[in-house]
Amino acid sequence: MIRCGDTLVVRALPGVPLVGRGDDVAALAIAALGRAELTLADGDVLVVTSKVISSAQGRFVDLSRVEPSPAAVELAAATHKEPRFCELVLQESSYLSRRAPHVLIVRHRLGFMCANAGIDNSNAVPRDAAAGSGPWALLLPEAPDAAAQAIRAALEAHSGARIGVVVSDSFGRPFRLGTVGAAIGCAGLPPLWDRRGERDLHGRVLVETITALADQVAATADLVAGQADERRPLVLVRGLKFTPVDQPAGVLDRAPGQDVYA
Amino acid sequence: MIRCGDTLVVRALPGVPLVGRGDDVAALAIAALGRAELTLADGDVLVVTSKVISSAQGRFVDLSRVEPSPAAVELAAATHKEPRFCELVLQESSYLSRRAPHVLIVRHRLGFMCANAGIDNSNAVPRDAAAGSGPWALLLPEAPDAAAQAIRAALEAHSGARIGVVVSDSFGRPFRLGTVGAAIGCAGLPPLWDRRGERDLHGRVLVETITALADQVAATADLVAGQADERRPLVLVRGLKFTPVDQPAGVLDRAPGQDVYA
Repeated sequence: MIRCGDTLVVRALPGVPLVGRGDDVAALAIAALGRAELTLADGDVLVVTSKVISSAQGRFVDLSRVEPSPAAVELAAATHKEPRFCELVLQESSYLSRRAPHVLIVRHRLGFMCANAGIDNSNAVPRDAAAGSGPWALLLPEAPDAAAQAIRAALEAHSGARIGVVVSDSFGRPFRLGTVGAAIGCAGLPPLWDRRGERDLHGRVLVETITALADQVAATADLVAGQADERRPLVLVRGLKFTPVDQPAGVLDRAPGQDVYA
Repeated sequence: MIRCGDTLVVRALPGVPLVGRGDDVAALAIAALGRAELTLADGDVLVVTSKVISSAQGRFVDLSRVEPSPAAVELAAATHKEPRFCELVLQESSYLSRRAPHVLIVRHRLGFMCANAGIDNSNAVPRDAAAGSGPWALLLPEAPDAAAQAIRAALEAHSGARIGVVVSDSFGRPFRLGTVGAAIGCAGLPPLWDRRGERDLHGRVLVETITALADQVAATADLVAGQADERRPLVLVRGLKFTPVDQPAGVLDRAPGQDVYA
C-alpha cells in the first residue's frame, strides 16, 4: 500500500555537524530531530546524502597514494581526467558505458549507472586529514542499503514509528542537463510504486504506471539539501503513507540486458 | 539568485474539475487556491500536469480517424504497438532514438527525448466525446512554455506575487526503472540551477554543480499529483527563492550532438 496525502512537508534538519569516520549517523539524526522539535511519525522518510554515509564509513582516499594502472592512464588520456582518479573509477565500477573528453560513465559495482563511479573529487577532505596529505577523493558508501537499514532500525527503536530511509546521491542523466537526486540505498520505503491495476477516474485499469518513488523522494530532498554554504545532509519528507518493505534501491536499476542505452 | 529555505511545503490544490477544451487553466488555479485559502507569495511555483494543458488545448485525437503510413505500419510491427498510435508518434517526433519490442523512444518535436512522444494512450477521453467515438489519444501540449507563461502572467496579475510555473510530464529513463516528473514547460523558475562559482564549507569553489531545478520541482509535485483515483493536476511548491527568469524548459535538453547516448 502506497499513498500520498495532499500535502508533503520537506524539512532539512538543523545543526548537523561535519561528519567523520566512525560517527553514528542515526545518533546525529536523532539529535537533529530533537533540535527541530520533531517527533518521527509513521510514513516519515529520512533522506541522507551519500556523502554523510561515506564520511562516516571513512571512504576517503588520498589520491597521492593511488597507483594508476596502464588502463587508467589510457582512460585518463581519453577523458581528460586525472590518471589516479580514473584508477579509482575503474576499481569502483563493473562496466564502462561511455568515454569521451570530460565524459566517463560506468556501471558502479553497486549496480547503477553514473558518471565517475560517483566519486566526489571536489571538496572531500577527512576531518582528521594530516597537513600536506591529499588531494582527497570520497568513494560512494559501502552497502548503502544496509546503512539505510541500520539508520531505520535505530530511528524506529527510538521513536516507535515505522519509517523509511533513503541514501541519496546526485546523478547526471542521458538526454537532459543538470543533476537530480537519486536513491542508491533504501530501507522501508518501496523504491518503486507499482500502480498497475489501480483504476483511473473512468474506472479503467492503469497500465504502464510505475513511479520511481525513492528517486522522486531523493529529488525532493535535494531541493532543500542542495546548498553549498550550509550543512543540510539530513532531510525529513513527511506526508507519504506506505506499508514498509525490505527492498534494496537496486530494484530501480534496469538489468543490463534490458536497457536499450547501456 | 536561487535559494531554498530549510522547509518546502508541497500542496495539491483541491477540487480541480475535469478539464476540457477551452477551459482557462489559470482561472481553475485561482479558484483552487481560493478553495485552499492560499494566497500566492513570491517564490511560489505552480506545477501543472501536461495532461491539463493538453486537455484545455483540445489535443485529443480520435485514433479511429488516423491513417497509418507505411513507416508507421513497419514501426508498429517492430515495437508491437498499434499502427495508428505509431503514426501519431512519428508525426509528433523529429528523431527516432530506439525501437524494440514494447520500446519506442523519440525526440519530441519540442526537443526532449521521451517514450512514445509523450502521447497518452491509456485514459484520455475528451469531456464531450460522442458515443461510439475513439479510442482516443492525447498529445502533449502545443508550446508548453507559452502555456506556462500565460498561467504565470494571469496568476501574477491576480496575486501581485512573482512566481514560477512548471508544466510537468512523467518520463521514463535510461538505466533506471520507473517514471519521474520532468519539466516540459517553464515560466519564471530557472530550469537549471547553476551553482558553479559558489563556495563550499571549505571555501573552495564548486565545479560541475548544475542542478536540474525544474525537473526536481516536477518530481516533487509528482509525489502528490500521482494518484489515480483523485484529481490533483495542480500542485503548489512553496519554499524556493529565485529571481524570475524567462528561460524555456528546453534549456534542460542536451543538444543532439552533445549527448553520448542519443
